[in-house]
Amino acid sequence: MPTAISPLAPASFPDMPPVAGVRLAAAAAGIRYAGRTDVLLAVFDPGTSVAGVLTRSKCPSAPVDWCRARLPAGSASALVVNSGNANAFTGRSGKAATAMTADIAAAAVGCKPDRVFLASTGVIGEPLDAQKFADVMERLAAEVAPGGWDTAAKAITTTDTFPKGAAAMVRFGATAVTICGIAKGAGMIAPDMGTLLAFVFTDAPIAPAVLRGLVRDGVEDTFNAVTIDGDTSTSDTLLAFATGAAALRGVEKITRASDPRLPAFRKSFNAVLADLAEQVARDGEGARKLVEIVVEGARSKHSARRIALSIANSPLVKTAIAGEDANWGRVVMAVGKAGEPADRDRLSIWFNGIRVAHKGARDPAYDEAAVSAAMKKPEIALKVALGLGKGRDRVLTCDLTKEYVAINGDYRS
Amino acid sequence: MPTAISPLAPASFPDMPPVAGVRLAAAAAGIRYAGRTDVLLAVFDPGTSVAGVLTRSKCPSAPVDWCRARLPAGSASALVVNSGNANAFTGRSGKAATAMTADIAAAAVGCKPDRVFLASTGVIGEPLDAQKFADVMERLAAEVAPGGWDTAAKAITTTDTFPKGAAAMVRFGATAVTICGIAKGAGMIAPDMGTLLAFVFTDAPIAPAVLRGLVRDGVEDTFNAVTIDGDTSTSDTLLAFATGAAALRGVEKITRASDPRLPAFRKSFNAVLADLAEQVARDGEGARKLVEIVVEGARSKHSARRIALSIANSPLVKTAIAGEDANWGRVVMAVGKAGEPADRDRLSIWFNGIRVAHKGARDPAYDEAAVSAAMKKPEIALKVALGLGKGRDRVLTCDLTKEYVAINGDYRS
Repeated sequence: MPTAISPLAPASFPDMPPVAGVRLAAAAAGIRYAGRTDVLLAVFDPGTSVAGVLTRSKCPSAPVDWCRARLPAGSASALVVNSGNANAFTGRSGKAATAMTADIAAAAVGCKPDRVFLASTGVIGEPLDAQKFADVMERLAAEVAPGGWDTAAKAITTTDTFPKGAAAMVRFGATAVTICGIAKGAGMIAPDMGTLLAFVFTDAPIAPAVLRGLVRDGVEDTFNAVTIDGDTSTSDTLLAFATGAAALRGVEKITRASDPRLPAFRKSFNAVLADLAEQVARDGEGARKLVEIVVEGARSKHSARRIALSIANSPLVKTAIAGEDANWGRVVMAVGKAGEPADRDRLSIWFNGIRVAHKGARDPAYDEAAVSAAMKKPEIALKVALGLGKGRDRVLTCDLTKEYVAINGDYRS
Repeated sequence: MPTAISPLAPASFPDMPPVAGVRLAAAAAGIRYAGRTDVLLAVFDPGTSVAGVLTRSKCPSAPVDWCRARLPAGSASALVVNSGNANAFTGRSGKAATAMTADIAAAAVGCKPDRVFLASTGVIGEPLDAQKFADVMERLAAEVAPGGWDTAAKAITTTDTFPKGAAAMVRFGATAVTICGIAKGAGMIAPDMGTLLAFVFTDAPIAPAVLRGLVRDGVEDTFNAVTIDGDTSTSDTLLAFATGAAALRGVEKITRASDPRLPAFRKSFNAVLADLAEQVARDGEGARKLVEIVVEGARSKHSARRIALSIANSPLVKTAIAGEDANWGRVVMAVGKAGEPADRDRLSIWFNGIRVAHKGARDPAYDEAAVSAAMKKPEIALKVALGLGKGRDRVLTCDLTKEYVAINGDYRS
């Protein structure tokens, strides 16, 4: 974690309970830097379901290929995540490194390699020396223990300035199940993906097919609605593991999407995803402002999403917000370039609740001083009303500061 | 011109001859700033053809609407361009301002208002006080004279750090015709448009329908292949005027696209557009590097263009180049996110002729020192070979520096 903690960070890492059936340990394997944890091992009880979404990049990392081939089986025994090296664009040696990592982990925890899930994050194009995992895996397998989310979340970070976690409890009749998630990501973040790396764990007994539906639907308005820089990673991975350990406490397995207990679980599951996704936006590289963009009155939700992303990814809008300038002209530009239906003469725009433009022109009541004060806040709500239909959507992003350029341009010079 | 001249600027404004049938004058009307020229008047001989391309923004400026309604007639008597105020998102008052400006110019030069073409650039959303044109138009109409391209090019600039002009001569048998162009633009520049503002003038006698074809085809690989920040303006306008004055020197009018003289003219016309477009990239806000991105081996030219633009608009690629880092991992990322066919394991990447990645992995012969030296040059050629087909395309952009953030974020704080 190279820079000062983001001013938008939560006050502290949340208090997260253990998830029955999940044991965790982290180690420093020296993947790229010495003296920091960079490998996470999670070991799951037998019968654990897994589902995931992976980057849609046409140039995915080797671990993404590995997971894509093994997700259809729906069963997981272990998860190995490393930071420091993404094992992306590493050719045959990258593929070999994933197989070797899985073999090492499988031997250490006593399972088939095909039940080991893998994720890597860090530098692209450097060969990953999987032998380094051999040096630490036996000890990790011996040390795994319930809880320790903070340590786990720290081990998977790269340019993140704080570890990201979120948790929820859901009551199934007399019994409660737990959902815990961790995520990492600060740059190379854009929708059309799972996310950078996010892992969600629950002791609820959920069949793989149902878990797949939860993940697929859940990312749509959470991780897929966050953009830092419009740059979709080669390594985006969201995996959800359901150990089923709550079955021992009398919770019956959820095997159908029509299960009456599912709506409540889905609500909490999505809340954990949304919390993690917002933390990713709060840790956007160089971010000083968290920006929520709401587009309403569009022809459809899809159209509203495209317009919201056009605004969220516009360097001119993002730099204006960094400059604490309610530059709605640039918002008009970004609406206009989105390629979606829009009528200039019906457009209205608000910054933090203050309407600055109305029906295609500057709002006559627009108070410059009030808007200037509102723009100094660390959280900016930008609302655009198109006046065409009922389509609405919401996207989170951050501002574009000199610090972003420094983080991504100065590091080698 | 607020900042120091771009280090990528040409050594000087080119030596540009007058174009027969075109007279120019500039004035300081105090549109936004005092003490700088901000209005350009061009007056054309009777019989002048006009063609143009305009922004595809769904929120176009009032002058764009004005031109779109009048281009089909194909005849021009005058052009009025102002900087300082874009007359965009100005509602009814914006529309009234265009009509008033055309009336003022028509009265001063003695033509119908419908033959006056308009373009405005500058702040969005501020009402444009067209009365300011009345104060200077009579004098401009009296002062118009052949040549003076440097003065004309300066009058239309906003955040540009140098005026942009290009010229060519084409021989039609014993007679030569002239093509002169001027352009402005430094930010809010992305394809899917004409350009920011560019005006091309020739004394060749060319019928409107033929001129339209020249413009439409000519922008495709010139202005539409330049991106500074991916932000398409509300005001993008390219207008080409053919006065036909060379007919007095015996040049017969070009009325058909099959005219045998057209290929030579097209070549020079496109060279002027390409020169102006490159100058726009060289004056990208905060630019320290001119970046040419060539994508070859794609499935089609269209696919190559989409991949080249994905690279050119990637903040991570642009900041890496600013940091003089041949970070080909980020190029892989940008290829992968483009949504076009790509095969990671066939991908090769060159920076300034040095192959850094080959067939899906780091090039084993990759010499870090040689690449570091190459990245220090002010012009960076980035080539990507996909190995899938024969599609090739080229896009120009610039790097993303802290200066870009300062120009667009600091100006009001």
